[in-house]
Amino acid sequence: MMDGRLERAFAEIDAAAGDSAASARTDFLYRLALLAHRGAGSKLTILPAALPVDAGWLSVWYTPGVSAVSRAIRADGDESFELTGRGSRVAIVTDSTRVLGDGDCTPPGGMGVMEGKAMLMKLLGGFDAVPLCLDTRDGEGRSDSSMIVDTVAALAPSFGAVNLEDISQPVCYRVLSMLQNRLDIPVWHDDAQGTACVTLAGLINALEVTGRRLEEARVVFLGSGASNSTTARLILAAGAQARNISLFDSGGPLCPERSARYEGDGWEWHRELCRMTRPFATPALALEGADVLVAASRPGPGAVPKEWIARMSRDSIVFSLANPVPEIYPAEALEAGAAVAATGRGDFPNQVNNALAFPGILKGALAARAKGISDGMAISASRALAGCAARGGISRERILPGVDDLEVAPAVAAAVAAEAAAEGLARKPVDPDSVARETAESIASVRRACDALADSGAVERVPRSMIEKALRETLDGLGGKGRAELS
Amino acid sequence: MMDGRLERAFAEIDAAAGDSAASARTDFLYRLALLAHRGAGSKLTILPAALPVDAGWLSVWYTPGVSAVSRAIRADGDESFELTGRGSRVAIVTDSTRVLGDGDCTPPGGMGVMEGKAMLMKLLGGFDAVPLCLDTRDGEGRSDSSMIVDTVAALAPSFGAVNLEDISQPVCYRVLSMLQNRLDIPVWHDDAQGTACVTLAGLINALEVTGRRLEEARVVFLGSGASNSTTARLILAAGAQARNISLFDSGGPLCPERSARYEGDGWEWHRELCRMTRPFATPALALEGADVLVAASRPGPGAVPKEWIARMSRDSIVFSLANPVPEIYPAEALEAGAAVAATGRGDFPNQVNNALAFPGILKGALAARAKGISDGMAISASRALAGCAARGGISRERILPGVDDLEVAPAVAAAVAAEAAAEGLARKPVDPDSVARETAESIASVRRACDALADSGAVERVPRSMIEKALRETLDGLGGKGRAELS
Repeated sequence: MMDGRLERAFAEIDAAAGDSAASARTDFLYRLALLAHRGAGSKLTILPAALPVDAGWLSVWYTPGVSAVSRAIRADGDESFELTGRGSRVAIVTDSTRVLGDGDCTPPGGMGVMEGKAMLMKLLGGFDAVPLCLDTRDGEGRSDSSMIVDTVAALAPSFGAVNLEDISQPVCYRVLSMLQNRLDIPVWHDDAQGTACVTLAGLINALEVTGRRLEEARVVFLGSGASNSTTARLILAAGAQARNISLFDSGGPLCPERSARYEGDGWEWHRELCRMTRPFATPALALEGADVLVAASRPGPGAVPKEWIARMSRDSIVFSLANPVPEIYPAEALEAGAAVAATGRGDFPNQVNNALAFPGILKGALAARAKGISDGMAISASRALAGCAARGGISRERILPGVDDLEVAPAVAAAVAAEAAAEGLARKPVDPDSVARETAESIASVRRACDALADSGAVERVPRSMIEKALRETLDGLGGKGRAELS
Repeated sequence: MMDGRLERAFAEIDAAAGDSAASARTDFLYRLALLAHRGAGSKLTILPAALPVDAGWLSVWYTPGVSAVSRAIRADGDESFELTGRGSRVAIVTDSTRVLGDGDCTPPGGMGVMEGKAMLMKLLGGFDAVPLCLDTRDGEGRSDSSMIVDTVAALAPSFGAVNLEDISQPVCYRVLSMLQNRLDIPVWHDDAQGTACVTLAGLINALEVTGRRLEEARVVFLGSGASNSTTARLILAAGAQARNISLFDSGGPLCPERSARYEGDGWEWHRELCRMTRPFATPALALEGADVLVAASRPGPGAVPKEWIARMSRDSIVFSLANPVPEIYPAEALEAGAAVAATGRGDFPNQVNNALAFPGILKGALAARAKGISDGMAISASRALAGCAARGGISRERILPGVDDLEVAPAVAAAVAAEAAAEGLARKPVDPDSVARETAESIASVRRACDALADSGAVERVPRSMIEKALRETLDGLGGKGRAELS
């Protein structure tokens, strides 16, 4: 159900823009996004999910009938997961201090992204998500972790899980760890854990196709932000050896001598990485004979030179995750001797896309009424994800399933729910098969709902005229008038 | 579109239960509510409102396109009302300390009620509402106003308005006043202001049909909780004279001598009422020759004896608002000499129902991007509401429109938006006619959406078997086995 109107617009842009087609496409998407968002007003609609809603039924859904629900929850708090939407509702929480690639966007600035993420959760996971942008800055406008923690803790009775998003470092680490300790519902930090999960899944298959074992693989991390530091934790938990792991931040290797950079609350795991991993003076030295590079550092091209890849072991594995331009393009990495190249982009093979993980993970956690999401649950998600790719056959060009693979979320949800039960983190006994089935049904039902809303006219599709306006502006911008400043 | 299945169940209950039909009906509603809520899981569904949502369009709604939205909001915060759902999204916030008639229901206990209110907002006002139950208790489990205020203030960038609900006294007063001072979006306390608005509307018409003027009417309030103390404020602002107003709480008259009962933060207005209104030793004395009684005290029957009404002036006006049983039934009040009797119940004429006010008021405030809701805006809502009843002709038995009158919310929204603009509280210039039209269209679109969801099977209607089960249990309970304890 691809919309051909966008494809045609892209084709026109490509023909007109020549060498600058990629940035002209992005310019077009920005322009169209502004028009389409202004037209839609909201990317979400909150509708009754309990029908009928005539006056008679309102005395069931509202007063006096609902009083029985209030009293049942008072008698047993866990009933809130069964009798209300709490059990199928996730809070997406940001303080908008690090919104995608745009940095601090002021408190309301992250809402467009959070609404988009809520759309993805419903479309790909079949559960409800509420986007929340918090004003939790201190007097000097800096992100305040205890304000975020207190706010989310206050909101916890309303949600079955919390997804943290686009919060700056090290506040994001502090907030995650404080909330995980304080709350008895799952708290997930998708920027860190989601990317780590998908990277581990891809790594499992990449090791398989290149005949390696995680226990022996030498892995170099370029960049030690939220995702890479968490990926390091997950692969260690999954069996990698600390003596085979090396990390670099923008200033050099993580090592005991540079641990002072990570003083203070929130950086505990980074200090631990400084202590336990194997330092090399430079990435080039570390990559000498290494099996795996996981780069999540700064956009390329050229952030990772071909020569570095050439020094790695035969048939090496290269994750080059910077967006929108990877540290090294796959073609270059492969030319330099890599066997497997993965990026964050959908227009190359082996896309590391969080959307492969978070829908199923959160759905599985909700299904089990989990009290938290352990590293064990995250690893089980990675293994399920790796298994999904394997069902279609894995190869150097296919270490991960596609984001359009509708079997992914059910499989991941089932694995996560089962692992929650195995670790004693499930409030509710789960049968993995019914979790998978129920997940698949929820997702199918969302598609039906979207079609029904569109067909009934209750939600309008973006009109052709809007696409044409954005296209005209983009093409005009190419024609010497220069690109409009959109921010 | 009334569901005949409920009507038939009621008929069966009435036939079997005889004198206890009313309580058997309530018992049935409790049983059915538990079954239906467990079946639905959630009363709300959060769906994409921006279509299409295929992979191509996700690069408009999500990354990279959405980045233009983040940057536009960073450049101008007010764009968050236009480019995201903020401008059409209300937070319904409770701490569950005073949930309907059930008192403290523990933090998650209010969710059923809040979801029901969110349904009403969407069905009757055409805007989105997010139900939020807060855990904002202090170490001893008591409601903590500053925690509520801090939490709501942190959430403010995500919402166009806040509706406070079911918070115990005096915390509700403190929270309302602190939030109104602190935030630049409307904060509404429906238990207080909503009831006050509708009562004033009814009073305007009741005075008209009995040939009185508000400026001269003598009004006695029985009960001085959130709704009555706020109604007193509104009618004073609308022209009533303090020397003609008397209030009673459960311990006696509000008067300077009893002001000590209202010491401390949050009770400022009650102390003011103690100072400025006219005290009488007893309600019976106060009602001697009074024109209007507004009772919102404790459920009857018998909380207001007929003799009190008989002492009032000729053709008096009696609001008897306790639920589910009014302080005095309308028939008794009329027998005792009242010309107009209003209650909170839908099965008598002249129902004072908040649902007449809050949908239009919040919708109007959102349409004007209002910075707050002033008493002037509330009074304009009351006048619009009174006008809606007048369009169909007012009488002693019709001082308010019915909740099924689809012209109410558009008229109220238009009046509120216009008053916001007149008072300089509107961020956005408004044309009242287009506010009314847009409100009517939103509401119609919600109905279409509900039908489409039901017809497509994306949302299931409550099955007949569930109604039959609740009915059977109710009838069994009558048959000597006693009523099941449902809490």
